[in-house]
Amino acid sequence: MKVYGDSQSGNCYKVQLTCALLNIEYQYQPINILKGDNKTPSFLNKSASGKIPLLELDDGRCLVESNAIINYLANGSYLLPVDPFSLAKVQQWQFFEQYSHEPYIAVARFIEKYLGLPNNRRDEYLSKQAGGYKALDLMNQQLERSEYLVGDKLTTADISLFAYTHVANEGGFNLSNFAAINAWISRVRGQKGFISMGQDN
Amino acid sequence: MKVYGDSQSGNCYKVQLTCALLNIEYQYQPINILKGDNKTPSFLNKSASGKIPLLELDDGRCLVESNAIINYLANGSYLLPVDPFSLAKVQQWQFFEQYSHEPYIAVARFIEKYLGLPNNRRDEYLSKQAGGYKALDLMNQQLERSEYLVGDKLTTADISLFAYTHVANEGGFNLSNFAAINAWISRVRGQKGFISMGQDN
Repeated sequence: MKVYGDSQSGNCYKVQLTCALLNIEYQYQPINILKGDNKTPSFLNKSASGKIPLLELDDGRCLVESNAIINYLANGSYLLPVDPFSLAKVQQWQFFEQYSHEPYIAVARFIEKYLGLPNNRRDEYLSKQAGGYKALDLMNQQLERSEYLVGDKLTTADISLFAYTHVANEGGFNLSNFAAINAWISRVRGQKGFISMGQDN
Repeated sequence: MKVYGDSQSGNCYKVQLTCALLNIEYQYQPINILKGDNKTPSFLNKSASGKIPLLELDDGRCLVESNAIINYLANGSYLLPVDPFSLAKVQQWQFFEQYSHEPYIAVARFIEKYLGLPNNRRDEYLSKQAGGYKALDLMNQQLERSEYLVGDKLTTADISLFAYTHVANEGGFNLSNFAAINAWISRVRGQKGFISMGQDN
């Protein structure tokens, strides 16, 4: 099994963290999107959209979209609930992540950290603040009611949301007023097998 | 079981179409987001984000995010594959829909159809063209290789992508060059139990 990714990407980190927690071994192939590694013909043959992370199975089948990958890897493990409604709640938070969280918090972080906050992206960067804080507020509301996003156990929903939330400060977001999020970040960090973003594997 | 939705919303149509195909009965409660029906305290108590569609079970538990809802409704039915990799592919297309399709095609349609393409949204509207066509191109590539997005059977991935693709023209997208998409639209329309968007239930 091979994972193609970028060590600074939260979406790629989701896959690495899931593998670490579940003790899944894999080969890692670094892809530098700023250098266009994801636009080569051989890469586009595996991932037509050019998206990373990409999971390539030993038989050559490929899967993209970080949340789909981690749910696949977590199939049958403690990271996914068995009850259908709880499983739907995991997906609810993951679709929320891709639609209402990542486009604000991860994109602001990309503009600041990767691109160095150039003047021609400053308006776009500032426009991400309101949506990002709304997403954080919704997460905080839930985490005031339950230890993890779906009940009292870690699921892939937490991995999906942890990836960019714990580095939201790198996109200009101040987490100090979100006590429940900060307590949850500590709980995630305390998981057996936890690895940090960018950590060698 | 109760569904709160808007008959012109593709996200809400996904839920109605899934129920129609699976012969699931439900009560329907119209929500007008332009009038703020989704911002009342009682609605926010069910859906903290104010998002529709909202599924409310008979015991009061609530679920949002259209793709999470339809996967929950389709649990154990012919609309979801049993094989874990195929199931991951369904989710891959659904996350693609929420990140790389809906923000372009559905938002352009919203600006044109709901808001009447006002001058102060025209630049944003035009900026949606490139991303929308990229998404359509990726769908068309897959549909040249398989009858449905995940193999030779209809899944919830097709419902997720059908919702806004078949009305993409209402957001200014011309589908005439996407032969595989058009053939797939016909196949989806031909399903037993199919209902059109906005059709009474």
